[in-house]
Amino acid sequence: MMKIDILSLFPEMFEGFLHTSIIKRAIEKGVVEIHVHDFREFAHDRHKSVDDTPYGGGQGMVLMCQPLLDCLKTVVDKDALVILMSPQGQTFSQKMAVDLTNEKHLIIICGHYEGFDERIRDYVDMEISIGDYVLTGGELSSMVITDAVTRLLHGAIREASHEDDSFSDGLLEYPQYTKPAEYDGAKVPEVLLSGHHENIRKWRLKQSLKRTYLRRPDLLRDRAFTKEEAKLMEEIQAELEK
Amino acid sequence: MMKIDILSLFPEMFEGFLHTSIIKRAIEKGVVEIHVHDFREFAHDRHKSVDDTPYGGGQGMVLMCQPLLDCLKTVVDKDALVILMSPQGQTFSQKMAVDLTNEKHLIIICGHYEGFDERIRDYVDMEISIGDYVLTGGELSSMVITDAVTRLLHGAIREASHEDDSFSDGLLEYPQYTKPAEYDGAKVPEVLLSGHHENIRKWRLKQSLKRTYLRRPDLLRDRAFTKEEAKLMEEIQAELEK
Repeated sequence: MMKIDILSLFPEMFEGFLHTSIIKRAIEKGVVEIHVHDFREFAHDRHKSVDDTPYGGGQGMVLMCQPLLDCLKTVVDKDALVILMSPQGQTFSQKMAVDLTNEKHLIIICGHYEGFDERIRDYVDMEISIGDYVLTGGELSSMVITDAVTRLLHGAIREASHEDDSFSDGLLEYPQYTKPAEYDGAKVPEVLLSGHHENIRKWRLKQSLKRTYLRRPDLLRDRAFTKEEAKLMEEIQAELEK
Repeated sequence: MMKIDILSLFPEMFEGFLHTSIIKRAIEKGVVEIHVHDFREFAHDRHKSVDDTPYGGGQGMVLMCQPLLDCLKTVVDKDALVILMSPQGQTFSQKMAVDLTNEKHLIIICGHYEGFDERIRDYVDMEISIGDYVLTGGELSSMVITDAVTRLLHGAIREASHEDDSFSDGLLEYPQYTKPAEYDGAKVPEVLLSGHHENIRKWRLKQSLKRTYLRRPDLLRDRAFTKEEAKLMEEIQAELEK
């Protein structure tokens, strides 16, 4: 079982997340254990202060070392990988999510929207950013990491589900259709109604390649195409040039 | 005031998010109005089904057009920008967040983790992905968009706070420090205690450049360096080569 400890000033933000869907089921099945810790409880003064003005001047407040690091000390153990959510971290990816499933214990520190004391970095093993945008805090980012990792843990969801994941085979997913065969004038492609498994497989692979080529050509740059894929790519390019 | 409607099968996931911190304050101040709609309520059968098996076979379930699109019809208006959260969308960025602040009404559709009927795309203005990783649903992604956009709206947070944002000036933030001047043996850099404003400004700019150069050189690739920045970059490179 994986253990995840999250250090945050807004533990109430996690309630809906921890009690819904896959995460709730994974906790109930004993696949993962998740605890959220409010490090404001470790503040010493009567105002429960966790931040102070920056040395050298400037706008905003900066998270202090003491409350956060005292909280960290109560959860850290020899297996722990300490992750700081930060816009300066490595950009999170599906590969990183897969790598993190090998850990026994993740500790995720949610940064504060105005920054934190640089010396906190000395107690951290890695910094992760979920993307190049600014959020009010690390709470949503820590949920993103927790969600992406938990769903990959053995027993969290049906194993076969992962096979169809976008990115898992380096391609975007092919178009999916369900009933009815016609909705508001729009029909399901004939091939999917044909029952011809080989044609369906080929159509889906071609659609995946085409969609990836048009939307995310960067994903194809270092791809080792199979012979079949290379032939389909030629067809796709010929069709697009028409 | 901006209006944001979110269509989701897990409205309870949003409770903590909507009642905490910046978002709560922005709603109270009338900066933004946010409603979460459960499109399962628009299902017609007595099991309240929203998904069905895929045409052409395969694992998992696919979101049907009808419940989702019927729900969409009840919230759409002429100002609405309809956004679908999808791993196949454009990758979200701070620039995109800034662009979205010009909209009056966002409708955000949270996809289902196993995919949705392709024909739903016909009713969507844009698709956004928050990064190259797989999540169990679009709920967290829709909160990320909502958070990143809301904090930029006039009146949501102190305007000056944006000036220090990572990415907002194309550089990562410089190191921040707050009291005490020494924590567990680690000291605050002398210059920040000097009170010499010009030296502090220059030190911070150099640290921002250095950190960006080391951690995210891609952000510097197309940068138009000022004369001062170019000189600092030369210093940084000389120091690193020592």
